[in-house]
Formats: sequence, C-alpha cells, structure tokens
Amino acid sequence: MSEQTKYLLDERDIPEHWYNITADMPNKPLPPLHPATHEPIGPEALAPLFPMELIKQEVSAEPWIEIPDEVRDIYRLWRPTPLFRARRLEQVLDTPAKIYYKYEGVSPAGSHKPNTAVPQAYYNKQEGVKRITTETGAGQWGSALAFACNLFGMECEIYMVKISYEQKPYRKMMMNAWGASVYASPSDRTNAGRQILAQDPDSPGSLGIAISEAVEIAATNDDAKYSLGSVLNHVLLHQTVIGQEALKQMELAGDFPDIVIAPFGGGSNFAGISFPFLRHKLTQGKKLRAIAVEPTSCPKLTRGVFRYDFGDTVGMTPLLPMYTLGHTFVPAKIHAGGLRYHGAGVIVSQLLKDGIIEAAAVDQIETFEAGVLFAKAEGIIPAPEANHGIAQAIREAQIAKEEGVSKTILFNLCGHGNFDMASYEAYFAGRLQKHEMTQAEIDAAVALIDTPAIPG
Amino acid sequence: MSEQTKYLLDERDIPEHWYNITADMPNKPLPPLHPATHEPIGPEALAPLFPMELIKQEVSAEPWIEIPDEVRDIYRLWRPTPLFRARRLEQVLDTPAKIYYKYEGVSPAGSHKPNTAVPQAYYNKQEGVKRITTETGAGQWGSALAFACNLFGMECEIYMVKISYEQKPYRKMMMNAWGASVYASPSDRTNAGRQILAQDPDSPGSLGIAISEAVEIAATNDDAKYSLGSVLNHVLLHQTVIGQEALKQMELAGDFPDIVIAPFGGGSNFAGISFPFLRHKLTQGKKLRAIAVEPTSCPKLTRGVFRYDFGDTVGMTPLLPMYTLGHTFVPAKIHAGGLRYHGAGVIVSQLLKDGIIEAAAVDQIETFEAGVLFAKAEGIIPAPEANHGIAQAIREAQIAKEEGVSKTILFNLCGHGNFDMASYEAYFAGRLQKHEMTQAEIDAAVALIDTPAIPG
Repeated sequence: MSEQTKYLLDERDIPEHWYNITADMPNKPLPPLHPATHEPIGPEALAPLFPMELIKQEVSAEPWIEIPDEVRDIYRLWRPTPLFRARRLEQVLDTPAKIYYKYEGVSPAGSHKPNTAVPQAYYNKQEGVKRITTETGAGQWGSALAFACNLFGMECEIYMVKISYEQKPYRKMMMNAWGASVYASPSDRTNAGRQILAQDPDSPGSLGIAISEAVEIAATNDDAKYSLGSVLNHVLLHQTVIGQEALKQMELAGDFPDIVIAPFGGGSNFAGISFPFLRHKLTQGKKLRAIAVEPTSCPKLTRGVFRYDFGDTVGMTPLLPMYTLGHTFVPAKIHAGGLRYHGAGVIVSQLLKDGIIEAAAVDQIETFEAGVLFAKAEGIIPAPEANHGIAQAIREAQIAKEEGVSKTILFNLCGHGNFDMASYEAYFAGRLQKHEMTQAEIDAAVALIDTPAIPG
Repeated sequence: MSEQTKYLLDERDIPEHWYNITADMPNKPLPPLHPATHEPIGPEALAPLFPMELIKQEVSAEPWIEIPDEVRDIYRLWRPTPLFRARRLEQVLDTPAKIYYKYEGVSPAGSHKPNTAVPQAYYNKQEGVKRITTETGAGQWGSALAFACNLFGMECEIYMVKISYEQKPYRKMMMNAWGASVYASPSDRTNAGRQILAQDPDSPGSLGIAISEAVEIAATNDDAKYSLGSVLNHVLLHQTVIGQEALKQMELAGDFPDIVIAPFGGGSNFAGISFPFLRHKLTQGKKLRAIAVEPTSCPKLTRGVFRYDFGDTVGMTPLLPMYTLGHTFVPAKIHAGGLRYHGAGVIVSQLLKDGIIEAAAVDQIETFEAGVLFAKAEGIIPAPEANHGIAQAIREAQIAKEEGVSKTILFNLCGHGNFDMASYEAYFAGRLQKHEMTQAEIDAAVALIDTPAIPG
C-alpha cells in the first residue's frame, strides 16, 4: 500500500471545549441593535426564543466553553470524523499540492449540522423546553434537529419550504423517521402562514416565511423555543469541534495547512473548520489563508456591503452588523439550497472586514464539475453545498501546479449528496444554468437596504 | 462520558487476506453440475463469464487468500469500518445483553457491497476486460459495482429491473454519477430483452430477466465479463474483511460474541460478518451461534429444501447444491429487495445442513419496527435489508432479559437507508403487509422444482 490516506482519532479525542474566536479577535463584533429603536440590545432580548445557556454563549468573551458530557456522549455516535488525504484527487489534478479533507458526512443526518443541533437540543431540554421549532429549506438542518430532539425525547416542529417539501420527500421522511413533525410552509398553523395563504393559496413558500412561522410558534408558546442552524455566534461555536479534530489529525499527518477552505452559507461550516486554525494565526502569527466560498448567485462576501441588516426576510430579528445583499434579496434557485442566504454571520463578517480571512465566489456549474471529479477520484458523492469548497480547493491546487510549488490545502467536506441526486441528474442533463450577477443587479439589491450603516 | 461506544482500527489494520471457510468445513460443498448433462463441471465452464483469478478463488481450498495491494489501497477509502456498542439500544430494551454492531454503511456506495465489487473490478482489469455487466434490483449492488469500475477506469453496464428503475431514480443517478450506463430491463439491447418486450411491451422486468440480459452481453462480447454481488463463493470470500475487522474490534472491547447475526439474501452479508468468527468454532471448538435472518416471504433457509437448483430464474447457470424454494419462485414484493432471492449460496447451505449455523425468519413489519427503534436509539436509519438483522438481535436481547442472563450479541449493519425512505413512509402510513407463507404455498413452490436431488 502507498502512504497513509486516512487519519482517525479515538472517541477519547473528541474535544472537551468549543473554541470561541471572539476572545482572540483584534476587533470585537459590534452589538446587535433593536429593530425599532436602533439602540444596542442586551442578551435578555433573545430570551423568548432561546434558552439562557445558549444566549450566554452567544455573547461570551471566554475563549473556551466546556462541552457537556451528555453532548460528547452523543457526539461519539459519529465523532471524531475522519480526515482524508485526497491522494487520488491529487493524482488526477497532477498537482504538487497536498490536499486534505475533513469528512462530516458520516453523521446520521449526513452533514455537519448535528454538531450544533445536539447541544441546542440539550440546553433546551435542561431548561425545561418541551418543543423546538425551526425552518428548513433543502432539509439538512431540519434532519439534524429532528435527530437531536429525538435523542433527548423532545418534540421537534419543522416548517419546510413548501416547494422543497414537495420536491424532496425523502428528506421529509427522514425527519419523520426520527419522530419530527414536518409542515409544508406556508401552513395554516400560524398567523404568518394563514396571511400568506389568504393572499396566495398556491404560495411555494420561502425560507423567510418558514422562519416567520417557526419563530411565531416559539414566541407565542411557553413550552416552545426556536432553533437556528447557522449565522449566530453560538452555532458557529459548536461547529469548532470540526477544526479542533482536524488540527490534531493534521499533526498526525505531520502537516499544517497553508489554505483552509469551506463553503459559505451563514458561516457555521466555514467557522467549524477554520476557527481553530485561525486561532494559531491570531495568537501566534501563524501564516494561513482561510477562504469562505459562496455561490456567484449569492455573493454577499465578495460583492455585498458591510452594514446593519436583519437576519430574516421580513425584519423580525435584531439588526446585525454583517456583509449582506439586503434582507429582501432573493437568490437564484441554485441547487446548493443551504447557501441561499442573504447575509453572513457577524463574526465572519468582522473577520473579513479586518482582512483576517478571504472570500471567493464560484458558479454552480463549476461546483458540479468539481463534485463529479471528486466523486470519481475519491468515491464520495458530495452535497451541492460541499462542492463549493471542492471547486475552490481545485482552483488552489491548479495555481500550485502553475507556480510549481507544493502547498497544503485543507477543505471541509460538509456532507454527502445522497439526497441530492436529482441535482446531479440536472447537471448531467445540461439543465443547470450559470448565475453570475451583473453589477446593476448587485447595485439594485443593495439600494433597497434601508437599515442603519455601521458607525465610523 | 460513559464507557467506550465506538471501536476503530487504523487503516494498517485492514486485513491482508480473505478467509476461505471451505478449508475448515467438515463437509466440503458438493460440486456444481452441468445444467444439461447433470455431470460435475470444472472451473473452465465459468471462463466465458468470469476472469480466471476469480474462478480460482471460487474453487480454492486454501484457507487464506492474499488481498492485492491495489484492492487494500481502495478499501482504505472507507475501511476499517467502525464497530459500535449499541449502549442506547440496550437501555431502551432494558436488557442485560451487550449488543454490538459493525457498520458497513460508511462506504461511498452506502453498503457492504463494495468489499467485493472492488476486487472483482480489479481482477477483471488485470485480465484485460474492458466492460463489466451486471443486474441490479434495489440498486445497492449496481451502485457498488459502478463505484468500483470507475476507480479502475472500466465501463460498467447495469441492467436495472424496470420497476426499480422507475421507482428509485436516485439510485440510477448515483450509478450515473460514477460513470456507469444504466438500462431499464427488459431493454432492446439484448435478445433476451427483445423477446420479453415482444411478448409484453409494458413488462415491469424482474431480477431473472435482468440477469439474462447482463449474462448475454458478457457471453457474446469478448471484451466484457459478468459480475455477481452475492451467492458465489468468491463473493462471500471477499466479504470476510468485515468479520476479521470485527474480531479485532471485539478484542479491543474485551469481548467475544455468543451470537453473530446478519440479514440473508444470497449469503454475502452473513458470510462477511460470521465466517471469521465461525473459524474459531470450527478450528478451536469455540461456542458460537451464527444466525442468518431471512424474510418470512422468502424462507428458503427455514422452510425450503436442500437440493440442486439453478442460480437464476430462467435456468442458464450451473446447478448448485443449495437451500431453495425453486428457481421459478417469485417472492412477495417486500421492501427489502436485496433479500428477494430464491436460493442460498452453496457454502452457507452446507453449513446449515451440517448444523454449524442457524437460520431465522422475520416478517417485514417486525423488521421496520426494529429499524425505527434502532434509528431512534442509535441515530443511523438502516436499510430495510439491515432491519432483518436488527429485528433478530432485538429478539435475542429480549430472550436474554427474560432469562436474566447477559449475552454478547453482534450484528452486521450492512447499509444505511438514505435511498429507502419511501419504504419507511409506507411503513409509517400503515401500507406494509405481513407476508407469512402458508405451508400449501411452500409445498406448491417446492413441487415445481424439477432439478436433481442431492445424492446420498
């Protein structure tokens, strides 16, 4: 056999703490503002929606936050996840670069999302919550939360964008198998849903509407809270188990990455793999490029503006300082549904603003080309979201080849594509379109933003 | 954290040999007979369909057969697979039994099938074969062979039962993603297919017809060979990597199973997990129950007859000494498509005849109850085939509870259910039926068998 391909850790190596990068950031994130008064808000404003322990994590300045034993106990069902050296991909690309990938698709739900779904369910359970509501688009997040709630014997109520509900029945059935209730949104269960249905009984739904429904249920029922799968600080925090493990595994490989890459929707995937490596950059001056990869159809990092904006479409959340295309921006219907979000999480936005990380945008056709090349070389068929990271890794490997230098590239393979085969079919059949936005389109989207600018 | 849950091995622990149980069997399997003359046939009769190295393995009396480096190199993409202690399931069952499971769903194709698809593709490649043909029903085997052929740059031509082709488009797309050609069978590409279509243009197809098509292409094209995913000795041989790893992992757990359990279709899953443990029973007198679990709708092991029969429906293969319900028997359309096969592989049949192993039958409703219980406890949603092993493990754990004795139970979780969610939906909706065969139905099926009896 040739040299080592796969780096495994023992379950005793599951991290004991999550890493909170805000502790090491040179410029701390700005505070959220009240949507009406535009005054900074405190943690108590979030109490109707989230349990207190998660709110504490949301605003914590501590660098390390202990992972409860009960959570680590469940992490063991799939963690530590493997780290692979992509030797076959390197051969196909004929590159001097060394390419590694961390594979999060081994979780029962098939992606990195359970890393945060499990602690979120745990803290809610601790505080007596009986029911968690959430929205889901493509279904990755809904599946993860259904899986987590089931393990703690809690009810899980999921508002799934109606068009996905109809087009992705397998995802819905997976959530049902773990005991979750899944409703096509808009539904007749909420005021928000009923209003939309009154206007348009055939509404295909949207993530914005589904969020409104899930939030309404949580806000109006004492036994229920709401849960989010990305964007917020505590969500990014929980994902840092990925990078901490990868750091140990790269040590086993005798290597440290020059470049860390991950797809970017709201930030949890990117934060998960990159923050533990960025810690070495921030605290020890280690050289490292961390690249967040977004679709060209939703380029908030590469072409958006840095200002206060709402986290949701209808404007119910606090105002957050973020790179955004505007909370009413509706991205093209690309197949990487998990990346169709108008804004970037607050921490990642500040890191980008400060030049600590980089961003890149890739068109979906390039991402599927990359995904198929990867599947043929390495075996695993990736989720469309994951293909964005692969496409950027291939770009960097090709640059390394042109420059004739060896570089070490690490990317996060955040999930498998078992529930996304129809997207591959569309790609093979030539039915996918490029979605490069014109400058006029960007300008038009940004011009609609009426929320406060960032001070200074 | 509580005690250890997951037992991992390093990639250096991937077995270096396959274990050939025939070397240790007290009664060797009887030879296959020529379908027309009923005389024993030699290996050369198989040469039109299989490469010589696989034929040698098919008839080998050596206990250990070396695994080529190129095959072990590919195994590393997912092997060694994890062994889990099912602590949460034990708790739910409130049993004194210790339950372990080996999880083969981590392979890129999602089941144990690549363990043999990879060496089969490898030996074909070595002997200059350009194209491999096969049939697939539910799609697990077709996916595995598509994955394997792609890695060796070979063409893969898959005849997929038409009704599955239409009902399981995701499986077809997965094979396409790895570059395989997939045809709905009956097709107009073969004489066999055209004959069927002439009689019935709307034929839904059957595994028997699909085998005929795949075999015809291989037999009539010099550059093509045929490949089978179960039943044959060399296929069972390749799967013994599962049990060899499990043996080491049970050692790490400081345990040895009292009972080893696996689902049973043609025998490859059961052989894979059990043969390396049975070696200790055969050569050292170690106490061990090995239980093959079949559906009540296809009970060849528990209610069939031991005699010569054809491996395929139309009667093209050599006659094999097997437990069978008759090669024309058509099992009810249960959701565990991979277990709908009329006969049992030759080695397993002889072991059952000699009382070295046991068999049990479980109805599909019990299997889905077991699968859902498992998914809720352990997280992973299993394939319908895998649910048969789980159901039997639960039965044994309940007996242990009634008897108040601790037993160690090991089962093979052969694959995940990501492509089988429609079956879970049917179960939840109450649309599944029991399929217990009456004695009259068994008698009628067996009465149709016109092939030679076993001598003596």
